[in-house]
Amino acid sequence: MSFVKRTELQMFDGRQIFYYDSAPVERNAIDLRPFEPRPLPGDMRQDVLTGEWIAIASHRQTRAFLPPKEFCPLCPTKTDFGTEVADSDFEVVVFENRSPSFSAPSAEQAPETIPALGRCEVVVFSDHHEGSFGSLDLVHMRTVLAAWIDRTREISKLPYVEQIFVFENRGEEVGVTLNHPHGQIYSYPFITPRTMKMLQVAQTHLDETGIPLLTSIIKREISDQVRIIAQNEHWVAYVPYAARYPYEIHVAPKVFVPDFAELSNDVADAFPEIAREVLLRLDGVFGIPMAYIAAWHQAPVRAGRDALGLHWQITSVRRAPGKLKYLAGSEAAMGAFIMDVKPEQSAEQLRNVQL
Amino acid sequence: MSFVKRTELQMFDGRQIFYYDSAPVERNAIDLRPFEPRPLPGDMRQDVLTGEWIAIASHRQTRAFLPPKEFCPLCPTKTDFGTEVADSDFEVVVFENRSPSFSAPSAEQAPETIPALGRCEVVVFSDHHEGSFGSLDLVHMRTVLAAWIDRTREISKLPYVEQIFVFENRGEEVGVTLNHPHGQIYSYPFITPRTMKMLQVAQTHLDETGIPLLTSIIKREISDQVRIIAQNEHWVAYVPYAARYPYEIHVAPKVFVPDFAELSNDVADAFPEIAREVLLRLDGVFGIPMAYIAAWHQAPVRAGRDALGLHWQITSVRRAPGKLKYLAGSEAAMGAFIMDVKPEQSAEQLRNVQL
Repeated sequence: MSFVKRTELQMFDGRQIFYYDSAPVERNAIDLRPFEPRPLPGDMRQDVLTGEWIAIASHRQTRAFLPPKEFCPLCPTKTDFGTEVADSDFEVVVFENRSPSFSAPSAEQAPETIPALGRCEVVVFSDHHEGSFGSLDLVHMRTVLAAWIDRTREISKLPYVEQIFVFENRGEEVGVTLNHPHGQIYSYPFITPRTMKMLQVAQTHLDETGIPLLTSIIKREISDQVRIIAQNEHWVAYVPYAARYPYEIHVAPKVFVPDFAELSNDVADAFPEIAREVLLRLDGVFGIPMAYIAAWHQAPVRAGRDALGLHWQITSVRRAPGKLKYLAGSEAAMGAFIMDVKPEQSAEQLRNVQL
Repeated sequence: MSFVKRTELQMFDGRQIFYYDSAPVERNAIDLRPFEPRPLPGDMRQDVLTGEWIAIASHRQTRAFLPPKEFCPLCPTKTDFGTEVADSDFEVVVFENRSPSFSAPSAEQAPETIPALGRCEVVVFSDHHEGSFGSLDLVHMRTVLAAWIDRTREISKLPYVEQIFVFENRGEEVGVTLNHPHGQIYSYPFITPRTMKMLQVAQTHLDETGIPLLTSIIKREISDQVRIIAQNEHWVAYVPYAARYPYEIHVAPKVFVPDFAELSNDVADAFPEIAREVLLRLDGVFGIPMAYIAAWHQAPVRAGRDALGLHWQITSVRRAPGKLKYLAGSEAAMGAFIMDVKPEQSAEQLRNVQL
């Protein structure tokens, strides 16, 4: 495994920040911004029509919205502008979100509400303002992966967290409010509706066959061939047989593993190469940076750990240059997806991109 | 009940078109466009990760995208341009979608695929190119409702349809490709994921209490008062306790009814008034036409008809002028919603709009 050093420091308002470095750098920059109290935790409500939980985070309405580059809060601190990262350079940092949707228990919670317990973190991929995960060099990508692994291990210890969701939104088309390359980690006090559904299906498959569902899927994809985008010794990337989005790619380790916490060094070391290829192919389809949601599915912290396997799901709403797929009536209100592109066609397009 | 006359005619390619008129108008216009074969039915694939069905409709990629007004296919036919509606004027028409996601069985279906059986219809609300459902006069709205009722009754007879979904997408922000005021009816060969979830929860509530869930919800909302937007003798409009969108309004009949097919004339006659008020209030919040998805939940054709009640769910992604709520990582990938606005706040804003 590449060497990765973690340094934990405190931010001006008491939040934790973690620096991850692939070299033994000393980190001790002090966040000099004047103290400001942190927002109280939000609350949650259960939708009686579905049983699902909704987090209410009304303090988020005022968060930064596409600030100009010189006021980017994810850039390193400059002498005249203090950002979220106190140091003047960094490789990868992770810190608690300033306007979190889920946060730690607080004594000040209003008594009649159900607190939205959990944790929301920002993962800044680079101190360069331009780019995204796919434009990092391979060592740098490995450092991001080390941060995802470390944070998953640490957050798994919080008694009020049931599920840890690592993701990257890219592009203003999916509502990104800060252009600086970054992702997020949402840690929920419940199992999300999608994961709950996947868990039920995966558990049934495991009970019936003795094989994890993701292992069966990978076997089928490798045998079918037509939807494969890229492979190496430890990972495989494919368009799923029943994709929901015009461009949807799943990237999975070939050997089942429930989450980042249990990913071996060998498998982790082989990830940057395939991740880079997949994201280059995605941008290559139309020759423009593709807006996407890159979501890591992991087993919940305390459930289905032999049934639900770690995999990366990249979905893009772009169906053509100048055309987006919108989640309108059928998708948004009924959860029934209509696909405009055959999965085998988009897989072929992705394979045909010249790198 | 207002008198509504239905006239059934045929379109150039064999599709059915229905004219609905609140006066005894003669309709016999012939669609003179040259014959063109209809697209073959698409197919469906089951997502093994969730068990959900995805419709593959690759013929939809080429459909009309925001044509200029003079080439609007939903306007009445002019002497120099034949549209989908052959007559030179109309009140409300319904016809089969030219590029349907779901369609009737066909002998030409490729044998190894699962056909996407069902029916997709377009409901044109008016022969005026501008406006939307909320800008119709009350008699005209009642004619649209008569069309929804009639179509639900008729489509319920198709043996391959399990669920009928009536909806309107409004605004380019939600992907509307034709600006002419219209809605759609999607009739699926399966119960959609959202309805399946609602059905399970509603059935449990019915088994435990003997009361339909929607009846219990309405009782609570009327008792809580703070989220009520509008009421009349037969209908109530409210922001749900656990809303998912910055502006979300549910409108339900006060007495449980499973679907349009069983809606009584008295209750139907009282709908236009509250519908108009709710949509005016929604546009009044920011003084701009709000983009929305207006979705009718109905019980499936052959399941849960005593458990799941008819109601109208209007959701808007606009959270402020110039700001949209995007379904990004947490919502799109995990189904876990984060709300920026407290339901009681948005209800108050909606009530405070001067009509």
